[in-house]
Amino acid sequence: MNYCSHCSGEITTTIPQGDNRPRHVCTHCGMVHYQNPKIVAGCLPIYQNQILLCQRAIHPRAGYWTLPAGFMELDETTQQAAERETWEEACAKVEIGELYTLFNLPHINQVYLIFLAQLTQPTFSPGEESLSTELFTEDTIPWNNLAFPTITKTLEYYFRDLKQESFTFRSIDIAPHASYKEVK
Amino acid sequence: MNYCSHCSGEITTTIPQGDNRPRHVCTHCGMVHYQNPKIVAGCLPIYQNQILLCQRAIHPRAGYWTLPAGFMELDETTQQAAERETWEEACAKVEIGELYTLFNLPHINQVYLIFLAQLTQPTFSPGEESLSTELFTEDTIPWNNLAFPTITKTLEYYFRDLKQESFTFRSIDIAPHASYKEVK
Repeated sequence: MNYCSHCSGEITTTIPQGDNRPRHVCTHCGMVHYQNPKIVAGCLPIYQNQILLCQRAIHPRAGYWTLPAGFMELDETTQQAAERETWEEACAKVEIGELYTLFNLPHINQVYLIFLAQLTQPTFSPGEESLSTELFTEDTIPWNNLAFPTITKTLEYYFRDLKQESFTFRSIDIAPHASYKEVK
Repeated sequence: MNYCSHCSGEITTTIPQGDNRPRHVCTHCGMVHYQNPKIVAGCLPIYQNQILLCQRAIHPRAGYWTLPAGFMELDETTQQAAERETWEEACAKVEIGELYTLFNLPHINQVYLIFLAQLTQPTFSPGEESLSTELFTEDTIPWNNLAFPTITKTLEYYFRDLKQESFTFRSIDIAPHASYKEVK
């Protein structure tokens, strides 16, 4: 951040009065420009014994498989964000259920929220950000070609919980290039 | 947003190629400035049969009582954010437990995440943003002087769940001036 988005003044990094950490502050108008983590909302779309995955058409991890998920937008709820992303990436309608996994990724300032979801009909097709969309069973999931650790962990938990017929919310910290820390 | 924080060029509102909604885009360098909801992380600090509340010293709702909570910062997890806020607002050390409530507040683009927490010792005092800090039982909580609906709902759920000795995660949509919609 170089310039103030309000007045175009130059930005300095300083600790504002009453604050306890450096912020981007405008040298002209004094506005403090806070930076905060972003929410990535997504879902695990279930159809009978299969899960709907999308093959990514875009950076990062193009060509790899993912659950439908993306940055939460203004003016929506987390559940609406998950539903919208599923529509945009897989042209699929889902009924969003319980929150299933929360991932903290502090090194990239993201918080993933993934909900269980029911695919109401086996109707789907690739959206603009997907190369293909497909239903997979546990045995056919491309485990070695999943896009992100958040996706791998969510799918692993799902099939583990499915065998026990009990689905438990989990919160997980993911560090860069480190093993997963399971908070709960 | 009037100016580009990267190059100080003028900002226009337009739908970028491949996008589907209006964004703030720089007319000079083309940078897209996305806006996203913020996470407010907090906790419900439990000590024996009492809950620690803070009386707010700052806008909004100065003078009203709240659970320790605030905007999640960069480079931290949601649990660390809740722990930090409790330290900053109530000078209290807590052990953060399960995620207890998620509130969607799309009209102000906030998502509240409130965790159950154990106050390890009955040691606390007002931080800079608090007028006072105090332990309350269900009967002594200032129910008519709580700062936000998110706080009232979380406390109501807690005492309801406490009677049943079973704590259930809940996701709630809060609309402006509307009755609560309970998603789960």
